[in-house]
Amino acid sequence: MSELVGNLLVAQSGGPTAVINASVVGVLQEAGKHGCIQEIYGGLNGILGILNEELIDVNEEKAKTIEDLRHTPAAALGTCRYKIDFKKKPEQAARDMDRLFDVFQAHNIRYFFYVGGNDSQDTSHKIHLEALKRGWEMRVIGVPKTIDNDLPHTDSCPGYGSVIKYNAATVMEIGCDVGSMATDDGSCCIVEVMGRAAGWIAAGTVLAKRSPADAPHIILLPELPFNEAKFLAKVQETVEAFRYCVVVVGEGLKDERGEEIGADKSSVDAFGHPLLSGAAEALAKVVQTKLELKTRTVKLGYAQRAAAHFASATDANNAYACGVAAVKAAVAGQSGFMVKIVREHNADGSIRWTTGLQPLEDIANVEHFLPREWISEDGFMPNEKFVEYARPLIEGQVAVPVEGGLPKYASFEKARVAKKLPARGSALAAA
Amino acid sequence: MSELVGNLLVAQSGGPTAVINASVVGVLQEAGKHGCIQEIYGGLNGILGILNEELIDVNEEKAKTIEDLRHTPAAALGTCRYKIDFKKKPEQAARDMDRLFDVFQAHNIRYFFYVGGNDSQDTSHKIHLEALKRGWEMRVIGVPKTIDNDLPHTDSCPGYGSVIKYNAATVMEIGCDVGSMATDDGSCCIVEVMGRAAGWIAAGTVLAKRSPADAPHIILLPELPFNEAKFLAKVQETVEAFRYCVVVVGEGLKDERGEEIGADKSSVDAFGHPLLSGAAEALAKVVQTKLELKTRTVKLGYAQRAAAHFASATDANNAYACGVAAVKAAVAGQSGFMVKIVREHNADGSIRWTTGLQPLEDIANVEHFLPREWISEDGFMPNEKFVEYARPLIEGQVAVPVEGGLPKYASFEKARVAKKLPARGSALAAA
Repeated sequence: MSELVGNLLVAQSGGPTAVINASVVGVLQEAGKHGCIQEIYGGLNGILGILNEELIDVNEEKAKTIEDLRHTPAAALGTCRYKIDFKKKPEQAARDMDRLFDVFQAHNIRYFFYVGGNDSQDTSHKIHLEALKRGWEMRVIGVPKTIDNDLPHTDSCPGYGSVIKYNAATVMEIGCDVGSMATDDGSCCIVEVMGRAAGWIAAGTVLAKRSPADAPHIILLPELPFNEAKFLAKVQETVEAFRYCVVVVGEGLKDERGEEIGADKSSVDAFGHPLLSGAAEALAKVVQTKLELKTRTVKLGYAQRAAAHFASATDANNAYACGVAAVKAAVAGQSGFMVKIVREHNADGSIRWTTGLQPLEDIANVEHFLPREWISEDGFMPNEKFVEYARPLIEGQVAVPVEGGLPKYASFEKARVAKKLPARGSALAAA
Repeated sequence: MSELVGNLLVAQSGGPTAVINASVVGVLQEAGKHGCIQEIYGGLNGILGILNEELIDVNEEKAKTIEDLRHTPAAALGTCRYKIDFKKKPEQAARDMDRLFDVFQAHNIRYFFYVGGNDSQDTSHKIHLEALKRGWEMRVIGVPKTIDNDLPHTDSCPGYGSVIKYNAATVMEIGCDVGSMATDDGSCCIVEVMGRAAGWIAAGTVLAKRSPADAPHIILLPELPFNEAKFLAKVQETVEAFRYCVVVVGEGLKDERGEEIGADKSSVDAFGHPLLSGAAEALAKVVQTKLELKTRTVKLGYAQRAAAHFASATDANNAYACGVAAVKAAVAGQSGFMVKIVREHNADGSIRWTTGLQPLEDIANVEHFLPREWISEDGFMPNEKFVEYARPLIEGQVAVPVEGGLPKYASFEKARVAKKLPARGSALAAA
């Protein structure tokens, strides 16, 4: 494989995580070691910024900033949910693809790394195929990222270990709180966590549980249809046993007809879509009215995926390793792969984390759900198989520097790379 | 003052905090140093447990457990919201008071410490007066506790520094997240925090803000009536300037008629009370429908007051010092006071935290609100005076031991003290 000399472009996509920047730092720090990589650029707001030729020159950033981004949550380069959609918008997609390659060629991009979840891996795959078709030699490697943990073929997804570490600690603390307030009449607390389709995040809170009396007492997973009668019976049984009940629910919990229980059909937005007031609120109303039990809700929302103040060191290290591995693979001549996390066991049973490569075509648009055999028979709790899988992902804590009692996070100065192309024009307006 | 020999009873009341146990540990560890204090008892679930003669023998607990409770959230002795209410239920209150003194006398309680907020200080005051009236020599000292920070005469309330440290870090992290996702169409996130009447908790999140572009952009305080038009204009202005807007709202925000905006009049509980779906949800509906701006909510709920994994060391140390000071004052012959936190300045401007005593009659049922002159003219942000007050309260972080990637919290074994009285009987049933 001949050495490919040129510039590097890295961008981030989809919902941010506590460790997505660690992957970018892995890319940047490894890229600095390879002479074949000349300029190092960051694309702002994912594909959307690249389409607009909004690139920053990472070599203008302080080394200290880059080091500090390893523990900074959210997407330092900005992110987007923009998708190149050949199915629904084929003409727009074709124009976008032309424009992307105009940008790649104008800036001699020969290494492209896209850090994201399912959609982003799909985008990377399409760009890889397009580069081959156009004969533009460019190495494309996807870097995994998603708190949802729903990418296939990788042991786990960077971002997942941190979200469940924070959520499990939070559920443990809420359990202490509600348990200590539970007098004879009992009480219930319902904690809503992210996860529209897959229950990995909700399941992860089981790590807070060390005895049957501990919170969480019930975990409702979006994979299993919600049965109100069985749920109420389980709440009642729990309150009778422990005087309180902490329920964790994945936001995308659905009823037996497949409708999200958090959809509030009484209010719609300007476009007529029902507003989601949330699964926890909906469940709380059921518990309060049918069991006459004092019930409070917690909705962690964006707080959970940004909680770098309590991020998992294992997760952050794996995220960083994925960025490093992506550059190494590309420099070695690979293209069209996603880096995956591999769990191996040493002779003493301890875990050795490594990385591997998986063809992007195996990843794109495949969702990986929680296996049914990792969930208790009654459906209300992940079992020991899940715990064995998940516990190593939350080991260790990222040390975050502090200033004035609060975490000290970094941000890029964002020195823009001079544009070389005409403005995106009509394509921009249509986006 | 002659030495008073006898037993000690400590109990906790009201909503738990991240550091209420630190105050109890201060009481217990200081009590062990004084020969005049014989047995050391804990009352379970505050006044309610004492009425039921549910006492535990703290000398049966391991010293390690007690040390570990210094960083354990929630009320290790259990708590209650039960109130001895001479106004609304005079007969029940008189029976309760008789019963309390039966318990005190049966167990030779000569030192009584009650850790709690406004209501609990009121209870302590009544017990102190009653002891004088009955000629039962007993030293009664209130120990302050409340995340709401609404007790008068004390610099601040133990629990407050920790809740605002965690909330400010969370708002900072949410700001990173939402800011990094904000593409041209903008987005809004509304974070609901506790605080029914006073805005101290919501105000505390201003500490996350280091520049005008930083979150939070708007803080809505329950002290100031909500004006929808001005609020929407401010959101619009913020999104135009920064492409995103993070709003923090105290749960008790009221409209101009004094009604809580979080009350959902469309649903009622079994007793006909409107269910609160929350201020953040109500505001999100307004922003989504009137500004057509993507809006998400976060409701931290109990998570915020139990977040010992990111508690303030200043707060925890002050909480502990209040417990110590309570015992010292009582042994020195004082009764009928609440310990207060005092802020003094060293010659170099640094802060020296000490404690003082304030008569309980000055505390009971007085609520301390955020001064209007600590809030910006437009009412949407606390100003520099507040920041100067609040920032020292979040300094330092409590070191929490970790096990399996999660905080390791302690709990009492709760060896019961043998009961000496007949069951509370009819009084119990009526409670």
